[in-house]
Amino acid sequence: MAFGWIDQQAEARRRAGLVRTLRPRPADSPLLDLASNDYLGLARHPEVTEGAAAAARTWGGGATGSRLVTGTTGLHTELERALADFCGFEAALVFSSGYAANLAAVTALGPHGSLIVSDAGNHASLIDGCRLARGERQVVGHADPEAVRKALAAHEGPAIAVSDTVFSVDGDKAPLAEVAAACREHGAGLVVDDAHGLGVLGDGGRGAPYEAGLAGAEDVVVTATLSKSLGSQGGVVLGPARVIDHLVNAARTFIFDTGLAPAAAGAALAALRLLEREPGRAARAREVAAELHGRLTAAGLEAVRPDAAVVSVRAPSPEQAVRWAADCRTAGLAVGCFRPPSVPDGISRLRLTARADLSGAEIERAVRVIGETRP
Amino acid sequence: MAFGWIDQQAEARRRAGLVRTLRPRPADSPLLDLASNDYLGLARHPEVTEGAAAAARTWGGGATGSRLVTGTTGLHTELERALADFCGFEAALVFSSGYAANLAAVTALGPHGSLIVSDAGNHASLIDGCRLARGERQVVGHADPEAVRKALAAHEGPAIAVSDTVFSVDGDKAPLAEVAAACREHGAGLVVDDAHGLGVLGDGGRGAPYEAGLAGAEDVVVTATLSKSLGSQGGVVLGPARVIDHLVNAARTFIFDTGLAPAAAGAALAALRLLEREPGRAARAREVAAELHGRLTAAGLEAVRPDAAVVSVRAPSPEQAVRWAADCRTAGLAVGCFRPPSVPDGISRLRLTARADLSGAEIERAVRVIGETRP
Ligand SMILES: Cc1ncc(COP(=O)(O)O)c(C=O)c1O
Ligand SMILES: Cc1ncc(COP(=O)(O)O)c(C=O)c1O
Repeated sequence: MAFGWIDQQAEARRRAGLVRTLRPRPADSPLLDLASNDYLGLARHPEVTEGAAAAARTWGGGATGSRLVTGTTGLHTELERALADFCGFEAALVFSSGYAANLAAVTALGPHGSLIVSDAGNHASLIDGCRLARGERQVVGHADPEAVRKALAAHEGPAIAVSDTVFSVDGDKAPLAEVAAACREHGAGLVVDDAHGLGVLGDGGRGAPYEAGLAGAEDVVVTATLSKSLGSQGGVVLGPARVIDHLVNAARTFIFDTGLAPAAAGAALAALRLLEREPGRAARAREVAAELHGRLTAAGLEAVRPDAAVVSVRAPSPEQAVRWAADCRTAGLAVGCFRPPSVPDGISRLRLTARADLSGAEIERAVRVIGETRP
Repeated sequence: MAFGWIDQQAEARRRAGLVRTLRPRPADSPLLDLASNDYLGLARHPEVTEGAAAAARTWGGGATGSRLVTGTTGLHTELERALADFCGFEAALVFSSGYAANLAAVTALGPHGSLIVSDAGNHASLIDGCRLARGERQVVGHADPEAVRKALAAHEGPAIAVSDTVFSVDGDKAPLAEVAAACREHGAGLVVDDAHGLGVLGDGGRGAPYEAGLAGAEDVVVTATLSKSLGSQGGVVLGPARVIDHLVNAARTFIFDTGLAPAAAGAALAALRLLEREPGRAARAREVAAELHGRLTAAGLEAVRPDAAVVSVRAPSPEQAVRWAADCRTAGLAVGCFRPPSVPDGISRLRLTARADLSGAEIERAVRVIGETRP
């Protein structure tokens, strides 16, 4: 029978306790949210939702075509200019998702004959980008600039190194300056995914590349998402104008995809304007993360010291991680639960996000619930 | 220098007349639009834009996380139920784009050891899905059920055939019933992309698989986009519940992507409700296409007889296609222009879309402009 093999896989997942199910949330969830990536607490900010609503009214429900046909509106151009200026890059190109932006950057900048050096902890979308690219991929150890240097030294011809700036599972930061130095020694480009850095790291949330002094560099390309700190949907690639022009001409997930919906562009632009006006939100997210980490550690839990706004707490097993997260939920707290196969090292953890708008009392309550429900 | 090779490619594109540039459109473009994929003219319908606005207000600017964490709202579930019911399938899963839906369906249903038989005219997103999938890909001639049958006969183990239902360049329809029969003979699954069929073909716009009697079949999986007839953004996979459950557990572009923005879900749902209430819109789009084709042919132009709402007109060369489209634009008419490398056969064409809301006078004017500007 067609698709018969699916049932065996489903049975294996059931036996391993790894079944995933969707749990729709209501509009007015009573849960305390430490699970979303809404780092700045902007997704439901009235300026952001009104930005979405106004854009839909002015521009329509969808972009109606590829960005190269009818899918580029004045709003897309305005958002691209604002993102480039904010992050300190010459140009920007907006995509329907961060996933699509990563596929675009890696495939268009890793052509046939090139080398793509990829950190072992990179996000699925960068990994898929490497697999789709025509270049040769070499995976190197996690956060290891020396390994990047060695891989680049052994290659003739175009090369890029590809890395998350903040790794999504443990929330640790890549050694950006050192990786950039290794790339420069060998004339290689650096492509970094700032999905978890934008809005959190760097002066006023300008991102990890800005913080590392790499903004505007001619050999650096940054991807990011509009779906986390900016509370919307979509992705962006930032870099030199010539690289952006190249993407317009060569990136399949740009050319063959409908443009980002106006409402998403409008929401992201409103969030960016808000962050420009209230730059303290970025620092506050980092503060909340540090406080969460401090209190969790004081309570005897094994939490990774946060470099950005993700706080990861180790769990003894996938089953216990799932149970732990479920018990938190019963106690009114939503936390993320990462387990195989979504973790590179097989270690399950609770994943907490430090929203800038969490109060001291909420942080205290979250830590108490996590402590009381620990396996 | 990093990215130095880009400049040579840019120069080659310039010499070949193949440079692509973005042209932002204003909110109140005076152009007559025969370039977008807004087949039913719903993208700017007030019910659709209000659907987007209301959803943003109720649910926020973004979904805030992966569908498996915080990114599933009650609205996503409602949209999935409505799409499944409308198209006649047991279950549905919504993605951030049609591109992501195609990557998900092909990779999750074409595992290691399987065969993926892919039509030579398939959309870029299906092709990328084939390249990312662990199964073995075999490309067969365009719209050739016999070739599908042969490829399947030569393989042991799980297999799928993958095809657009309406091919995006020429607007021709796949021989769905015949391909499905070939699949059934060999116990293979059929995965079809109804991006250009949903809203246009089948009773009231239920799509090409519905029209071909394949809706709800246990060996058929349909992907579609919310960005064309439904005037929004996003993608969907429709099929048996067990296949949808499998995607939830296995599809990387589902698991590792932020959920579709509420505004996009709200716009698509409003468009779907409108289409349910006004089923004549689908037939009207087909009527407009037939009228466009008839008039173009009568004017001596080489247009492909439309199976859905895409009318393709051949141009003598890429340069002349670009000039032709530009001359149409100067005369107040927006048309699509497809040329290498976005056409499988190297033939450049103007691509016209038959919107259901075009008036007779608008059709007449479009045909006149196209005729007067022909190279
Ligand atoms: C590091 C990283 N990159 C890219 C993405 C994909 O971005 P998007 O959800 O906007 O597609 C994510 C998560 O969703 C991520 O965590
Ligand atoms: C046949 C086909 N499939 C898939 C897609 C991708 O859908 P989306 O634009 O929603 O990503 C498109 C066009 O955009 C298409 O023409």
